[in-house]
Amino acid sequence: MEIKVIKNILEANEVIASQNKRLFEDKGVYVVNLMGSPGAGKTTLLEKTVKHLIDKKRIAVIEGDIATSRDAEKIAAHGVPTLQINTGGACHLDGNMVRGGLKEFNFENIDLLFVENVGNLVCPAEFRIGEDDKVMIISATEGDDKPLKYPLMFQVSSLLLLNKVDLLPYIDFDLERFRNDAIRVNPRLEILTISCRTGEGLDNWYRWLEEKINRKRD
Amino acid sequence: MEIKVIKNILEANEVIASQNKRLFEDKGVYVVNLMGSPGAGKTTLLEKTVKHLIDKKRIAVIEGDIATSRDAEKIAAHGVPTLQINTGGACHLDGNMVRGGLKEFNFENIDLLFVENVGNLVCPAEFRIGEDDKVMIISATEGDDKPLKYPLMFQVSSLLLLNKVDLLPYIDFDLERFRNDAIRVNPRLEILTISCRTGEGLDNWYRWLEEKINRKRD
Repeated sequence: MEIKVIKNILEANEVIASQNKRLFEDKGVYVVNLMGSPGAGKTTLLEKTVKHLIDKKRIAVIEGDIATSRDAEKIAAHGVPTLQINTGGACHLDGNMVRGGLKEFNFENIDLLFVENVGNLVCPAEFRIGEDDKVMIISATEGDDKPLKYPLMFQVSSLLLLNKVDLLPYIDFDLERFRNDAIRVNPRLEILTISCRTGEGLDNWYRWLEEKINRKRD
Repeated sequence: MEIKVIKNILEANEVIASQNKRLFEDKGVYVVNLMGSPGAGKTTLLEKTVKHLIDKKRIAVIEGDIATSRDAEKIAAHGVPTLQINTGGACHLDGNMVRGGLKEFNFENIDLLFVENVGNLVCPAEFRIGEDDKVMIISATEGDDKPLKYPLMFQVSSLLLLNKVDLLPYIDFDLERFRNDAIRVNPRLEILTISCRTGEGLDNWYRWLEEKINRKRD
């Protein structure tokens, strides 16, 4: 019985997510759904990315949080249209929550919609919101065993950003094992190593993102 | 409508959790529900705790994971009765999943049942399993802003273990801000700082746990 309920929720979500996606297609907006555990570095990555791209691309941001609008305030301070969605306890954004916020933006003037999901390595992976790509960020301090233990998020993501690689000298983390397990779970997964703190590797991420945006507008 | 469904699931869970709790009370078993994000250090803490207590207390372990039985294998290697519950995608353990596993143990011979929940800072907080105490573990690398952003888990926990404090010199983490925010969210929350890697602070945790076990058996 419980499984049936969950299935219906997921099916209803698919319908709404497809409607969102059609709107984004019409307007030529490239949409990223950024997912990862609490503290993986989602907001810091977003801030750095906004700063880097703001003169080149027209950006809008949706911040998903259970409570507080701290992250949205941080991002809005950079001068991009930002919407906070407080889920009020729910552990992920879904298509309907995102749809409810879309009227806040004028998508004629936007190249990139960046959606930061609720911090959670599990549930957000199950709910499409109409995105072009799911990008996951995981910090090296979370451990190298995560691809096999939390496979779904690795399976549904296009790109995996391994963050906090500046801490690798101080922790036990087998980068080769991590890479191999991630690729085993999702052979099409691209992987970039970064440190939002030192800036290492961020150029590769910016390049990846700009290519996606440019391809969408062509 | 969706909210109603979720409410019914939560109510049904409460009934089963209370039944589990009654069984644990009858047998004098102290039950910990250990929660935290992926990579916070749950399994490492559990391994260290089992090693430390195994000559003094009779321990059983339930390992909750989405997939794989890696953690259960690690724990069982220490010679304690261990049950793996694979949730098959679900982001938390609930009362019913735990109930299904209870017949695997002979609780006449157990002082402590240690339940390691699925790695997730959100959903496990909503589901009682019949535990005496919820204990949350968070690693300093997750950031000092978590109490206000993920308040529920802080609210429902009796004890907060701040792990990986050996990394504090290499990261930006305001310990005082973290403590103050955590206490603001839950004034009754006890907080211990530990490092599973260096062993720092673990004695305080062992003492806390042993007192709880002894009080339950009196």
